Amino acid sequence: MEDLSFVPELPSGPLDVYRNNASFNWKRLKLALEGDFDLLKLKYKIWRTLEKDPLFAHSPITLPVEEQKRITQLQLKKINEYKFIPKEMFNASYSKRTRTIMTINEAVQSLNPSVSVKMAIGIYLFSNALLSLGTERHLKFYEATIKHREILASFSLTEIAHGSDARLMRTTATYDPSTREFVVHTPDFEAAKCWVGNLGRTCTHTLLFAQLITPDGTNHGLHGFVVPIRKPDTLETYPGLIVGDMGEKIGVNGIDNGFIMFNQYRIPRENLLNRTADVTEDGTYESSFSEPSRILGAALENLSAGRIGIMQESCHSLSSAVTIAVRYAATRTQFGERDRETPLIEYELHQWRLFGYVSAAIVFRLYIDLFAHTYLNIVEKSNAGHRVDNLSEAVSEIHAMVSSSKPLLTWTTLRAAQQCREACGGHGYLKCANLGDIRSNHEPTVTYEGDNNVLSQQAGNWLLRQYEAAIAGKPVDSPLGTVAFLKDLRTIKDRTFTCKTTKELKDPQFIISTYKWLLCWMLKYTHEKNEANLSQGLTKVQARTKSQVYRWKTLTKVYAEYITLVFCLDNIDKKERELQPMMLKLFCLYGLWSLDENLVELYQGGFAKGEECARLVRDSVLELCGEVKNEIVSVADALAPTDFVLNSVLAKSDGKLYQNLQKAFFSHPGVFERTPWWRDVVPASKL
Amino acid sequence: MEDLSFVPELPSGPLDVYRNNASFNWKRLKLALEGDFDLLKLKYKIWRTLEKDPLFAHSPITLPVEEQKRITQLQLKKINEYKFIPKEMFNASYSKRTRTIMTINEAVQSLNPSVSVKMAIGIYLFSNALLSLGTERHLKFYEATIKHREILASFSLTEIAHGSDARLMRTTATYDPSTREFVVHTPDFEAAKCWVGNLGRTCTHTLLFAQLITPDGTNHGLHGFVVPIRKPDTLETYPGLIVGDMGEKIGVNGIDNGFIMFNQYRIPRENLLNRTADVTEDGTYESSFSEPSRILGAALENLSAGRIGIMQESCHSLSSAVTIAVRYAATRTQFGERDRETPLIEYELHQWRLFGYVSAAIVFRLYIDLFAHTYLNIVEKSNAGHRVDNLSEAVSEIHAMVSSSKPLLTWTTLRAAQQCREACGGHGYLKCANLGDIRSNHEPTVTYEGDNNVLSQQAGNWLLRQYEAAIAGKPVDSPLGTVAFLKDLRTIKDRTFTCKTTKELKDPQFIISTYKWLLCWMLKYTHEKNEANLSQGLTKVQARTKSQVYRWKTLTKVYAEYITLVFCLDNIDKKERELQPMMLKLFCLYGLWSLDENLVELYQGGFAKGEECARLVRDSVLELCGEVKNEIVSVADALAPTDFVLNSVLAKSDGKLYQNLQKAFFSHPGVFERTPWWRDVVPASKL
Repeated sequence: MEDLSFVPELPSGPLDVYRNNASFNWKRLKLALEGDFDLLKLKYKIWRTLEKDPLFAHSPITLPVEEQKRITQLQLKKINEYKFIPKEMFNASYSKRTRTIMTINEAVQSLNPSVSVKMAIGIYLFSNALLSLGTERHLKFYEATIKHREILASFSLTEIAHGSDARLMRTTATYDPSTREFVVHTPDFEAAKCWVGNLGRTCTHTLLFAQLITPDGTNHGLHGFVVPIRKPDTLETYPGLIVGDMGEKIGVNGIDNGFIMFNQYRIPRENLLNRTADVTEDGTYESSFSEPSRILGAALENLSAGRIGIMQESCHSLSSAVTIAVRYAATRTQFGERDRETPLIEYELHQWRLFGYVSAAIVFRLYIDLFAHTYLNIVEKSNAGHRVDNLSEAVSEIHAMVSSSKPLLTWTTLRAAQQCREACGGHGYLKCANLGDIRSNHEPTVTYEGDNNVLSQQAGNWLLRQYEAAIAGKPVDSPLGTVAFLKDLRTIKDRTFTCKTTKELKDPQFIISTYKWLLCWMLKYTHEKNEANLSQGLTKVQARTKSQVYRWKTLTKVYAEYITLVFCLDNIDKKERELQPMMLKLFCLYGLWSLDENLVELYQGGFAKGEECARLVRDSVLELCGEVKNEIVSVADALAPTDFVLNSVLAKSDGKLYQNLQKAFFSHPGVFERTPWWRDVVPASKL
Repeated sequence: MEDLSFVPELPSGPLDVYRNNASFNWKRLKLALEGDFDLLKLKYKIWRTLEKDPLFAHSPITLPVEEQKRITQLQLKKINEYKFIPKEMFNASYSKRTRTIMTINEAVQSLNPSVSVKMAIGIYLFSNALLSLGTERHLKFYEATIKHREILASFSLTEIAHGSDARLMRTTATYDPSTREFVVHTPDFEAAKCWVGNLGRTCTHTLLFAQLITPDGTNHGLHGFVVPIRKPDTLETYPGLIVGDMGEKIGVNGIDNGFIMFNQYRIPRENLLNRTADVTEDGTYESSFSEPSRILGAALENLSAGRIGIMQESCHSLSSAVTIAVRYAATRTQFGERDRETPLIEYELHQWRLFGYVSAAIVFRLYIDLFAHTYLNIVEKSNAGHRVDNLSEAVSEIHAMVSSSKPLLTWTTLRAAQQCREACGGHGYLKCANLGDIRSNHEPTVTYEGDNNVLSQQAGNWLLRQYEAAIAGKPVDSPLGTVAFLKDLRTIKDRTFTCKTTKELKDPQFIISTYKWLLCWMLKYTHEKNEANLSQGLTKVQARTKSQVYRWKTLTKVYAEYITLVFCLDNIDKKERELQPMMLKLFCLYGLWSLDENLVELYQGGFAKGEECARLVRDSVLELCGEVKNEIVSVADALAPTDFVLNSVLAKSDGKLYQNLQKAFFSHPGVFERTPWWRDVVPASKL
């Protein structure tokens, strides 16, 4: 057994009564959820280090946005100096190296999400893009960014009037052979690049996506360019640029999101990222698809890595939110009989409000652990030039998985943060409860790196293609096996609900098999609507647009629930035997709690008839809530970061709720002082 | 026709294309929603006045919390000075006067919610409580508060460890006959009063609820006392008090929520609010239920008025949120075919995401308009000493209506604000979009004045009592008629779904009649579960606790949907004929969009079988979305306050989305400056 003594013991206190009832060791669960001993150790090392550093101390009040940006920048520099990436990592495998970077990002994100975004965009996204889109001549930028940390970069894609639809971006880069330069230009404010993290105040360079136009006037579409923005030593912007900060946002105000307009701004020809295409000195456009497999691998990485990172961070936000609400529920009493008050966690309604989200946190972490592993192995093989069977099909399937599960994970986390706040009542509304900040900082994930609704449509496209193959009797393209079951389409769709007891439902096989039926039916239902639309003369785009609600959108959500369940189940099988019974209970809870949201489809599609199905699914959910009650505080302990990182007055691991609240209240700056503006309060003199 | 020229015309612009397609005059709808010409005029007068006053100018950044408190206090004083209550109002009927005060509160709330809370608690709630709980000897406090505005008060009920369960409050007021004083005492921090608005920094007096203990040691339960907190002329707290501010919250930071501990703090005997009970000078407790009907009326008012106010303010927040999202959807284009981009509002998915909430805004406003009217008339009659038939039954029914519809309205608004933010994409995440602040400031309404989940249970209690009467063949106690249909229980529960076309569903009678079936079935389902629990030997409390999820909770939600629909329908009937077709469409949209959430129960209970019901309900929702599309921008115009009050860069009434965004960005303080902390960004010298 690994030595987990680096994970601090939990102080004894009011939570013991529940902790003592758990069937498992919470530290073993923590390790199982992290999936890697070294990475767990690294995470705790980072948290210990930053806890000792005054620069990372929490402020009891929200600082002015400019001050948040300054501190975020200082924290980023400090993290660079700490060199948390072990030296040997630079020679480790791609997969190991990437997981290490992701772990550092997660550890930092749970403390200050702005720092991790700043780092992810300004260093990793930029340098990865240089590797995958650029060539030898861009290595100098790469080294200056990741090795010397002299460049802090940004990523300019979105325009004021165009977000999701990248095709219609209007910023141009026109080649001028007379000076061998590209002339970058923004036609008007609507084409200003915006939402560019790090651009508002700090970055020195940006990775710009603009329409490449050759001297003959041909538009060759969006291409990437490295564009200098500020002098690295004085941070003054260059002439020809209008660069500004976008001002205050709902959250992540440590990030300086900026906008930029280019006025015939010239950059060297060499700044075009020219792996897939180049412009010769005289202005001829040359496309070079010489290494298709490597390009595919690179494309895969660029598309999905950021979204996988978002899902991992979501899992952490979800874990923090449920930890706060569970610990509060176990220590807060309200009502009761004969003047013995009852802890909130004993109420069935309170269990139902929270435990589904706790189970989601476990299922999501086990899903993302296995999925990231699978994904990184494929990229690694492809990057190393090894043959990957069905690479292009795998890329498509991975894209569908990411495009459906990023919405599921980020939306579930957003709902969870809200439910947890409400479950902590008024005290949950205090800033020092931290649920507000967790929520506000998490919120943009449902919009950025692909708006959830737009992403879902892309997953749906892939799913319908597979379904159409299956009904035509052709094999499906599913190297990762997520829709392999479509070969049994005919037998699956004949299934009906025949259970008589909740015991039959609280079984992973029932859940998986019901999801397969549900997917087959949703595919049929969506496909038929789409075909009906087409046969009415609608264009392909119109037909799809008119079959989103209740069809496409539901389909991709059901698919996401299914793949998280399947990957989670596979992963449980790899974990310690002692943990498995509890994990399987939480698996069933999440599965049935999710199926509950799909009951209408089960009835509509004829899987269920009569009252049993709805009643048994819901009774099972409530029974499972009761069954996991004694595990749930220890599950939260395993999900939780350290008290310093969790930063919630309601949920310190000592469980001393009211002592901690009193300390927080009594130590607010000026709490007992007469307010300095008291003269503004007393009634104006009547003289 | 009334002269509505005081409502400013809308500037011509990109929104005209939709405005021109509306079937009705938006100003007439605005008047219909307000329900009273004078009140609409007053609202605009207030908005015009405050727009011209620099003290009410919006800040582009969130101010430090102390500064927010100071400005809120100044704004309150300024509003007092403006004397918006017309002089003749002091002699007007109770109902007219209260609606005027509510309108002023609404007008102010949509500009700065903290001011309206400060005013509602510090002046109106306090002075109303003095009238209803106090006697002649408390008139001096009343006059000082509402007439001279020398007292700013607060309301101390909740304790650190007890929120929803008022019985167990532990603050005591023990009578000392030797000095004829009450000695107020807080045993420990857990019994400190908290969440008291105005207490943290500003109030001079508080209305305290404490356990009254007579010299013989008997505890007579919670009673109200007027307790001095700060010297009115210096704002210093009195010795014997520990008073502090609770610090930053998720929103409404203009309110100084405070906590207080009393250390054997003495107040005069006369400060007991003694309408229902008193303590004689020598310490004898005397209860005086001499005027039961007036006491009931007063109780009714205290319980419900605050919650009705919250519902009205919710409607305003909901209206603002949907206005922003609808105007954005009509001016923002994305994707399309053959390079003609499509406004978001044309996408079925986008319509479905927003239009249900727009219809909710209309239904809720028409519900609350009629309900407040009904409610105030009853209170007025009762206060005036007129006989009100079945007053005590009416009080119970009103309490059930408020306890179920306050959760429905506040939760729907919260979900709407979130959906509207997401529907505005990244730009919705900007502070200057105002959706974040609308949401954060609205959020506490789901917790305060009765936590939504706790309130729902109270409504459920009343409903089950009525059901039990009905199945026993006794008459139901429903003076307002909300469950009068229970007399037809037997015939209603035999109904089934027999429609074949969406036309049959898009009919108010179908919706109301389906809701009646749903209520009867939910009552039966909840009642049976409760009885089964009891027969298993559970106590009454346990039995109820174990039948919340999927039963009690769903039941009260369905009841709330039903009463909002019924009252709305009655109110539509009173409105101008020209508006009715559009109103009925929105009524049907809201009704079917809500029924969609109850489809499982329709199947489970046997109302629906096969695929038709779900398909037809959902097809109807989508058809109605398409049918109201051309009305929706004008509906939003009717729901919207002025541009100044709406304060959203995304939704000015001129529809010039990008010009307004550019102006907002370019005028941010310091937007184009090099950041003052640039030295913290450039790499540290290597020397």
